[in-house]
Amino acid sequence: MTSPAQATLSGSLLAPFREELGSQLRDLTRAAEPYGPAFTELWILTEQQILGGKLIRPQLFLDAYGALEQPADPVLTERDIVKLAVAIELLHFSYLLHDDVIDGDLKRRGHPNLVAVLSDRLEARGVPRRHRDMGHLDALHWGRTGAILMGDLLLSAVHQIFARICAPEHIRIALLDLLDHTIRETVAGEYLDVGLSDGAIQPHLPTVLSMSAYKTASYTFQLPLRAAAIVAQQPSELERETAAIGHHLGLAYQLQDDLLSVFGQPQDHGKDAFSDLREGKQTAIICYARHTSCWPQIEQDFGDPHLAVEQGENLRELLSECGAREFVEGLIAVEIAGVEHKIAADGPHSLPEELRDVIHRYGEGLKGRAA
Amino acid sequence: MTSPAQATLSGSLLAPFREELGSQLRDLTRAAEPYGPAFTELWILTEQQILGGKLIRPQLFLDAYGALEQPADPVLTERDIVKLAVAIELLHFSYLLHDDVIDGDLKRRGHPNLVAVLSDRLEARGVPRRHRDMGHLDALHWGRTGAILMGDLLLSAVHQIFARICAPEHIRIALLDLLDHTIRETVAGEYLDVGLSDGAIQPHLPTVLSMSAYKTASYTFQLPLRAAAIVAQQPSELERETAAIGHHLGLAYQLQDDLLSVFGQPQDHGKDAFSDLREGKQTAIICYARHTSCWPQIEQDFGDPHLAVEQGENLRELLSECGAREFVEGLIAVEIAGVEHKIAADGPHSLPEELRDVIHRYGEGLKGRAA
Repeated sequence: MTSPAQATLSGSLLAPFREELGSQLRDLTRAAEPYGPAFTELWILTEQQILGGKLIRPQLFLDAYGALEQPADPVLTERDIVKLAVAIELLHFSYLLHDDVIDGDLKRRGHPNLVAVLSDRLEARGVPRRHRDMGHLDALHWGRTGAILMGDLLLSAVHQIFARICAPEHIRIALLDLLDHTIRETVAGEYLDVGLSDGAIQPHLPTVLSMSAYKTASYTFQLPLRAAAIVAQQPSELERETAAIGHHLGLAYQLQDDLLSVFGQPQDHGKDAFSDLREGKQTAIICYARHTSCWPQIEQDFGDPHLAVEQGENLRELLSECGAREFVEGLIAVEIAGVEHKIAADGPHSLPEELRDVIHRYGEGLKGRAA
Repeated sequence: MTSPAQATLSGSLLAPFREELGSQLRDLTRAAEPYGPAFTELWILTEQQILGGKLIRPQLFLDAYGALEQPADPVLTERDIVKLAVAIELLHFSYLLHDDVIDGDLKRRGHPNLVAVLSDRLEARGVPRRHRDMGHLDALHWGRTGAILMGDLLLSAVHQIFARICAPEHIRIALLDLLDHTIRETVAGEYLDVGLSDGAIQPHLPTVLSMSAYKTASYTFQLPLRAAAIVAQQPSELERETAAIGHHLGLAYQLQDDLLSVFGQPQDHGKDAFSDLREGKQTAIICYARHTSCWPQIEQDFGDPHLAVEQGENLRELLSECGAREFVEGLIAVEIAGVEHKIAADGPHSLPEELRDVIHRYGEGLKGRAA
């Protein structure tokens, strides 16, 4: 959904946002220099990875903010608005880093992720083995350590930005409350996701759908929309309505991600082929498939850490054949319809037309996305 | 160093601190409940682990604050002072969680750490294997995931506390700057530590000593002392002096930790026996040993991921024999002397007597600590 969002981004804030993102990352890199070349390199590599993002979340925030009528006397400067957009992007990237460590993934956005880049550089330098029993393991360990620690640094940077926003106390506290809620909900979603794959939690469809909404809707759609409502000093009713809409959009987005991971093309979605199937992710697709006659065949290979491409392709066919793909496409259609219902021109809501237009465009952008 | 610190803790703040720590953890656990029993359990298990801490860092903060002359009109309420103490302890615990994941450790304070507790509970429930190729791996994966995510939640909680301190703008910003600096320095130290063990960074003694100070002095001694100076509205000169003292104390503390890990008793220090040797940690002990005639023998087993207890005992003897133990004891004595020099009654400093007494006690407490 790169193009629709980019096309609609409030033009006046796009340039300042990119400038601020670059400037924040440069400052953070500069602050790392006293700690030597290895720590500085970690920041430089991270900077390169962050600047390759699709920027969906900060764009939604800026679009929504631009669509809301501004009070005559705005409470935040333009600089603080773009800083919040930067924080929203950094939060996303900090999640990606820890998710990749947890999932053991080495690819992101079609390229080696930070774990892989750090490991590859160490391997390439041909460092001596720590001990005769160890080889490649060390290089991956170094990559994973870098990703865990950089996730911590970015999470801290996000909080520093929120904490320093210059705004009246009630706005500042509302933003901190929103950040607190968002992080709790996203982390809970991630924990449930892993608990489901690791067999610690029973994979019932309602649990899986809640998890999917927690881990994605909260920070990808609700945070940008609600933050825009708060800084534009909108009534709390409007903020609540955007939260409900963000829930629908986010669930649809995550269900599409699940479909893409199985049925999409790695060159489009940028992740390892079939990583969800290899990791035994309990998605809505799998919940449905479990109750079909294809399951005994699917079960053979699902969650195999050494899943080969042909096995993945076979699983993909079975998951299509058993109706799971169609079922999840239906779930997505229901969520998109939920969005349309909540922004209907004659509906019982308090959303101004421009904001409804923005939301409608994001809903449309979701349909049939490939990346 | 539990007893001296506990005996001296400013009595009036000990009870409110413990109450606030318990209350913050209860609130965080309650906030987890809407996300189901697994996420709530994660908080309950974490609460139990945090409450078993030695509380050195918050005690130093409260002791130092109590030792400084209070302005007639304190800028922070007692409640906010104890909240800062709580944040300092939560920061420590969030580091422990990520360090244990990075180091692959399963023990802390003589008991199974959060990784081990979560894994053991999952194993005990005898969950079905995700796939025929996987068994115990999944349980450890679940434990590690819980520790990574809980580290993120606690790091966020720390920032939320700092961000919400009710104080004049310049105090609030000074505290946020201090937190920012502390986290950058500690994480840089941890990154260098792993880079040294993984062979990404050359193990020269100055690098190893810098790393040791970054990863420990910054958050264990400098943060509590400097935060106390800031909230007691002391001149910046005093804050700088406490930072220099904290550097000496922290380096001494970390060097002692290194000695304890090799020469101490696991029942005292509470970690796995010889974990530093097994992980190939490049400590000052190893830097010294590398240039002695014992090194060819030491090198055989150092960094062996499967190091047995007898091998560890043999390494311990060699490290003592080659003079490394004595060398590091000498380094510690130099750092403690550095502290004494900086707090000498007739020295060129601005430290009040009561604060010098507190610092002196912490320096004394370091000598010959076993845990």
